[in-house]
Amino acid sequence: MPGTHVELILNCRWLLPVAPVNEAVEHAGVAIDNGRIVAVGPIDALFERFAPNRIVDLGHHAVLPGLVNAHGHAAMTLLRGSAEDKPLQAWLTDDIWPLETAHVSPDFVQTGTELALAEMISFGTTCFSDMYFFPEVVARCAKQVGMRAQIAFPVIKFPNAWCQDTDEGFHKGLALHDDFRNEPLVTIAFGPHSAYTVTDADLERTLMYSEELGLLVQTHLHENQAEVAEAHERLGHSWITHLHERGMLNPSLQAVHMTQVTEAEIELIAEHDVQVVQCPHSNLKLACGICPTEDFHAAGVNVALGTDGAASNNTLDLFAEARLAALLAKHTTGNASAGSSQQLLYRATLGGAKALGMDAETGSLEVGKSADIIAVDLDNAAFFPMYDPISAIIHGAAGASVSHVWVAGQCLYDDRTFTTLAVDDLKSRVRNWQSRIRDGRRSNR
Amino acid sequence: MPGTHVELILNCRWLLPVAPVNEAVEHAGVAIDNGRIVAVGPIDALFERFAPNRIVDLGHHAVLPGLVNAHGHAAMTLLRGSAEDKPLQAWLTDDIWPLETAHVSPDFVQTGTELALAEMISFGTTCFSDMYFFPEVVARCAKQVGMRAQIAFPVIKFPNAWCQDTDEGFHKGLALHDDFRNEPLVTIAFGPHSAYTVTDADLERTLMYSEELGLLVQTHLHENQAEVAEAHERLGHSWITHLHERGMLNPSLQAVHMTQVTEAEIELIAEHDVQVVQCPHSNLKLACGICPTEDFHAAGVNVALGTDGAASNNTLDLFAEARLAALLAKHTTGNASAGSSQQLLYRATLGGAKALGMDAETGSLEVGKSADIIAVDLDNAAFFPMYDPISAIIHGAAGASVSHVWVAGQCLYDDRTFTTLAVDDLKSRVRNWQSRIRDGRRSNR
Repeated sequence: MPGTHVELILNCRWLLPVAPVNEAVEHAGVAIDNGRIVAVGPIDALFERFAPNRIVDLGHHAVLPGLVNAHGHAAMTLLRGSAEDKPLQAWLTDDIWPLETAHVSPDFVQTGTELALAEMISFGTTCFSDMYFFPEVVARCAKQVGMRAQIAFPVIKFPNAWCQDTDEGFHKGLALHDDFRNEPLVTIAFGPHSAYTVTDADLERTLMYSEELGLLVQTHLHENQAEVAEAHERLGHSWITHLHERGMLNPSLQAVHMTQVTEAEIELIAEHDVQVVQCPHSNLKLACGICPTEDFHAAGVNVALGTDGAASNNTLDLFAEARLAALLAKHTTGNASAGSSQQLLYRATLGGAKALGMDAETGSLEVGKSADIIAVDLDNAAFFPMYDPISAIIHGAAGASVSHVWVAGQCLYDDRTFTTLAVDDLKSRVRNWQSRIRDGRRSNR
Repeated sequence: MPGTHVELILNCRWLLPVAPVNEAVEHAGVAIDNGRIVAVGPIDALFERFAPNRIVDLGHHAVLPGLVNAHGHAAMTLLRGSAEDKPLQAWLTDDIWPLETAHVSPDFVQTGTELALAEMISFGTTCFSDMYFFPEVVARCAKQVGMRAQIAFPVIKFPNAWCQDTDEGFHKGLALHDDFRNEPLVTIAFGPHSAYTVTDADLERTLMYSEELGLLVQTHLHENQAEVAEAHERLGHSWITHLHERGMLNPSLQAVHMTQVTEAEIELIAEHDVQVVQCPHSNLKLACGICPTEDFHAAGVNVALGTDGAASNNTLDLFAEARLAALLAKHTTGNASAGSSQQLLYRATLGGAKALGMDAETGSLEVGKSADIIAVDLDNAAFFPMYDPISAIIHGAAGASVSHVWVAGQCLYDDRTFTTLAVDDLKSRVRNWQSRIRDGRRSNR
């Protein structure tokens, strides 16, 4: 009796489904049809039950949900390495903001975002959140390449290349939401840059629209001490309190960074079910501090991971973020059992999906979910021997060993070859931007 | 007029010589003859001056000195991932020591060390320090594969598979020194495991022999709080003071870890010109703390980097250690300018060589030094654009992009292919060990 027809079966040495059980299973498979996972289980049972069009043999691989990069500024790849070893405020005001003023344009964003997508795909990310100028360019780019994305369009009180004022910004952002209303892969959200760069009126406008339209909100919050000190000086209380007073602490809010928080603030965040996104490399590189993820976790807060922009990282490898987050969890608690590999695998996948309101659709290998799946080739001295595939994935620098990436069943990276990105052409466009940016810096000196 | 004959010229897109000037140079080359660097400079000038047998074109690559992994236990690769998310003392007593008692043998050490060498070479390490049982096996293995090594033979008060007591250990270790006296790549040193696992008599014996023979000494020192607290309880002062009282603080001593130190101890270490080796991944993974490298540096102490064993890391990628060390330097000082990429490149190369007493021979691309050189292929989305090759190398996860490795002019890794290691045979031997270790653990439960 022939089995049920399906498009694809992945035949995996190790399967890391994340949910319903966050454990590794040996010799298991995933059956995929019409972009969705139709079955997960022992490979022999799948072959009995299904007649696949195609089988991909992943005999040395760990197969897991695609990673969710819950915070970044994709196009900033073009500024990677342009301003090194500087503290946050100097880095922003002396380097990044002047460079952005001089260069940011639709073409800059197109090229920088494509570069970021290439890099994120090669490191196993299938879903990213973005906050940058020309969000319509980022949204189109994600759609075209086939990546899942949350595009948080910027709300910021300074005029910029994308909008003269926030009236124009909200107008363009809401039009973008309208354009992408029926796109399965791209969701639009609000991206108020931070409490200190957005007026109270615009924070209130963000809250009103987000409630009306059911859209999520992502913002930088308590990134470093100077930011929090400024709030206390100006307002007599912190930015978290400031947002709380405006009713903005709610499950739709994704609070990014959160390196400087009191116990009372952690409780407040937990009470209002705010999503927390940690960016460990960026936070250390800019000497901002460490997000107390284990305190948030203990309080019941969902914690996700982000790379932040490449200019403060300098890579977009979410596996590296997970590894560093595990190490920092152990360090800050003084407890080597904290930040377990299982927990970090969860945060890098389903926790991220939950933060972005996408956990019904992605983040685990469960029947009915979108086939957002990656394979990591473990046939490499650095992964021998193999007692524990989950710790190997988290502590073994898996990013460089990603071999395959599927989003909604479409293979974007096939045995290390991009299928939806023209990399040679992209590199040549990046080189042009590099020359322009470098020449601009020289002429400013 | 024909140029002077040389064996090899490397034609490099970016050259990072580390010394005499620690800056990147574009379109430069290295001329190599008889295992040594005979010239470094603009590529055109080298081609005018020399007639090479062979040219290796590294047109997308950064070329730099091979990295120096100043602390590790190579054979522990076989225990990688065998005991995860556990604090140091439980990790040692419940898992690592019982596993070692059950399995360590010359064959275990041979297989585990070959695996470590494959991994280290693939990540750009050309010189490593080792401290493990059966050091004669490690020494032979390094020689056979062509890696530069310091083999610190273990001195420990517990009987073990290698020696019944320290009399036997010193005897075997000194015989090993004698055997390798004329080997250019392998140096023997003393490896007293730690002040808390070695008797005072054996510490004194170590000091006496090391002075007599001019050999260096490597030891674990102040790895975590419990270790230091125990010293205060038993002796009324720290292990650093204990070693100081015995005259063991001197330029021959390599003090590994040093996460728990007072200001006075930092001054003492500086005053006696002790070498400090930081193992950032291992220290965080076992929740031991962070070595205050910037305080040591400010006091004039040379700081090197080590991976420690793969069982507490879980990779042997010194680039990853350098990146994490840079981030931790910024974090602990609260100063994003600390831990610059230049400084970390130095620590990963020449600083490491200096700690091992090998800085006249390796650690920089300077005329007269051994040709211990690596190439990193930067033709990858994650390295685009390129404004600053040194920050790209340190913050861009270069380990996975190493393409070539030379030690003393011998190419050990040629466009990602090992030339002195039979990797398939090695993998099959590792698989056998994996089964034995896993079965042993199951039968103990």
